[in-house]
Amino acid sequence: MNSTPTSPPDKVLFTPGPLSTSPTVKQAMLRDVGSWDQEFIDIVQRIRSQLLTLAGVSKAAGYEAVPLQGSGSFGVEAAIGCGVPPGGKMLSLVNGAYGERIVKMAQHLKIDQVVLRTEEHEIPDVEKLRQTLADDAEITNVIVVHCETTTGIVNPIEEIGNVVAAAGRIYTVDAMSSFGALPIDLPACHIDYLISSANKCLQGVPGFSFVLARRAVLEASEGHARSLCLDLLDQWQAFETHGRFRYSPPTHSFLALEQALVELEAEGGMAGRAARYEENRRTLIAGMRRLGFREYLQPEQQSCIISTFHYPADPKFNFNTFYNVLKERGSIIYPGKLGDVDCFRIGTIGHMFPADVENLLAAIEDAIGVMELDMTMVAAC
Amino acid sequence: MNSTPTSPPDKVLFTPGPLSTSPTVKQAMLRDVGSWDQEFIDIVQRIRSQLLTLAGVSKAAGYEAVPLQGSGSFGVEAAIGCGVPPGGKMLSLVNGAYGERIVKMAQHLKIDQVVLRTEEHEIPDVEKLRQTLADDAEITNVIVVHCETTTGIVNPIEEIGNVVAAAGRIYTVDAMSSFGALPIDLPACHIDYLISSANKCLQGVPGFSFVLARRAVLEASEGHARSLCLDLLDQWQAFETHGRFRYSPPTHSFLALEQALVELEAEGGMAGRAARYEENRRTLIAGMRRLGFREYLQPEQQSCIISTFHYPADPKFNFNTFYNVLKERGSIIYPGKLGDVDCFRIGTIGHMFPADVENLLAAIEDAIGVMELDMTMVAAC
Ligand SMILES: Cc1ncc(COP(=O)(O)O)c(C=O)c1O
Ligand SMILES: Cc1ncc(COP(=O)(O)O)c(C=O)c1O
Repeated sequence: MNSTPTSPPDKVLFTPGPLSTSPTVKQAMLRDVGSWDQEFIDIVQRIRSQLLTLAGVSKAAGYEAVPLQGSGSFGVEAAIGCGVPPGGKMLSLVNGAYGERIVKMAQHLKIDQVVLRTEEHEIPDVEKLRQTLADDAEITNVIVVHCETTTGIVNPIEEIGNVVAAAGRIYTVDAMSSFGALPIDLPACHIDYLISSANKCLQGVPGFSFVLARRAVLEASEGHARSLCLDLLDQWQAFETHGRFRYSPPTHSFLALEQALVELEAEGGMAGRAARYEENRRTLIAGMRRLGFREYLQPEQQSCIISTFHYPADPKFNFNTFYNVLKERGSIIYPGKLGDVDCFRIGTIGHMFPADVENLLAAIEDAIGVMELDMTMVAAC
Repeated sequence: MNSTPTSPPDKVLFTPGPLSTSPTVKQAMLRDVGSWDQEFIDIVQRIRSQLLTLAGVSKAAGYEAVPLQGSGSFGVEAAIGCGVPPGGKMLSLVNGAYGERIVKMAQHLKIDQVVLRTEEHEIPDVEKLRQTLADDAEITNVIVVHCETTTGIVNPIEEIGNVVAAAGRIYTVDAMSSFGALPIDLPACHIDYLISSANKCLQGVPGFSFVLARRAVLEASEGHARSLCLDLLDQWQAFETHGRFRYSPPTHSFLALEQALVELEAEGGMAGRAARYEENRRTLIAGMRRLGFREYLQPEQQSCIISTFHYPADPKFNFNTFYNVLKERGSIIYPGKLGDVDCFRIGTIGHMFPADVENLLAAIEDAIGVMELDMTMVAAC
């Protein structure tokens, strides 16, 4: 699909993103459009409304979609900076690296916080959350990551949302890697701010994130933002008054997402996409078990987004060799991100199919051969 | 150049950005690369080093290039948030909308500030700056916009830098629309932080900005950043330790800039590019004068970046009609951004050539006919 004959053929990206996109999504970027021109304004407004539709909500139901330049993290920090009132206190439920990043964001923003941590293979303790909210009236906001891409674990956002709403606090969900694949019912989950990005399950290219917000909460955030660029209210007001971005948007990424949403629809919407990702994952897990790999998470905690595997017990295993053998054979995988456990990750989202997973599995079998690994060896601990 | 036969042919963007890029720059985006893969890491490191070369500096000379996701404004806010120490005070020299945006950023960041404003057609008063710095020892930072894209006026960054350096303050220059076209000597101007973007005179696509910083100043900014995402020191340390972005980069925008830098070199570097932009502007100004338009700025204040024109005096002039006639004929221009003067702007940067300017001028002549404007009419005031 490359027009420059010298560029190497693309590898399939078994990563949490930037991930593989379709040739047609990339071809949609072969244009330059004026960011203040009506054509582009219409594209952005259409995408904003489609994002709400995907979330099962609408402007009429009181929700707004606010795209924001930058990567997904910029959207998360914007939602925190706008969601937490001056003098507010944020409770973070943390079981992975993206939760830890949120903690670091609050530190930079000098926002008071309470952190409830669980192990990276354990979901948050909802009872403890209820108790903490009951005990600490100063807590104004609760935030959690939906699919913790560190491991692939899926946190119970509806159960958590029920507790947060009952306690009358603002609820923010980082759904970066899950939106578009795992169903999310914003009203049922009582979500005030949800963040995701163009380049995850929607299969656009990177360039911007978006925040879906309850309008009433967004409107009440006047004066909260700790940053002008990350001021979601200001950004939203610009869309509402003249349809324009405040600052230069990544026009090509929007053209790509426009096409990606057409392809999502053609695949049968979120249900169709989820079915393919599930098939990718089933193929992966079955193959990896057959080859002798062990998963880090319990099967019931896993999602179709990304899977974490322990290193083989054989000390001859070397991640760099493994990575390079797979890369030579056309697949890019991801290192682990856990503090104390040696593991690697394989994403199953993006423009990839069970046949790609089969190719990856064949490459993994080759890598086992190259390293002469004894896959029957059992870990010491 | 569109591969989808149904998409409308691209208009030439006579705007301050996002602007027109070459077909080959856009084609470079027809790939997906892994953001943690060595291939991409190498591309980013090469671009970082090329950006320093373009600025006539290097790592060895004590400078660093830090790309940052988001639009150009994100880079400006990051440079402010990192450059101003806690409890510091920033002096802004303002003569246009981008300077006003900086003032708004400081307000959001709760940074103490002094603003020295001049009219939008006047450069900053350097003597007053010297006096203010002498009188107010609390001022730690000075910031100015190089080419104020509001009008196209070019501010005297070297003269200002001499005063700032003599007073021992940190000096930040927003060179968004000028870098790559107007020569900038960082050491001679005593610049500590310079901000620009991939999608201005370098002719890449939008998606990220970059900050060129004196390493000593950057290293001394520990604890300054008011935002995690906009923390330039943290971002830079990630590049230095493992070559990776902290958060998902717009990989396609980097592939585009890689190609754009090849094309800049092929055009004869910054000098070659500036020569073309100058030719664009000469063609434009000569044609507009011939048609009876008046420039907002004095000729000696103008740059080849963008030009501001007064509305014709004939009350039959209507900007929307004007815009639409030009658009139908393949050119997109930009509205004005001045508080009290009716004007419009025509950019002459990006992948455009004197022949495109001639087409625009022919379209403008048509528009004058369509509106039946009397171009000899003289403004009332
Ligand atoms: C759950 C989650 N949150 C946040 C992010 C950060 O997104 P980005 O890398 O685009 O900043 C990611 C990225 O994979 C993620 O998976
Ligand atoms: C001088 C100047 N500063 C800042 C900006 C803001 O850049 P962006 O729109 O990419 O945020 C611009 C944009 O044209 C500019 O010309």
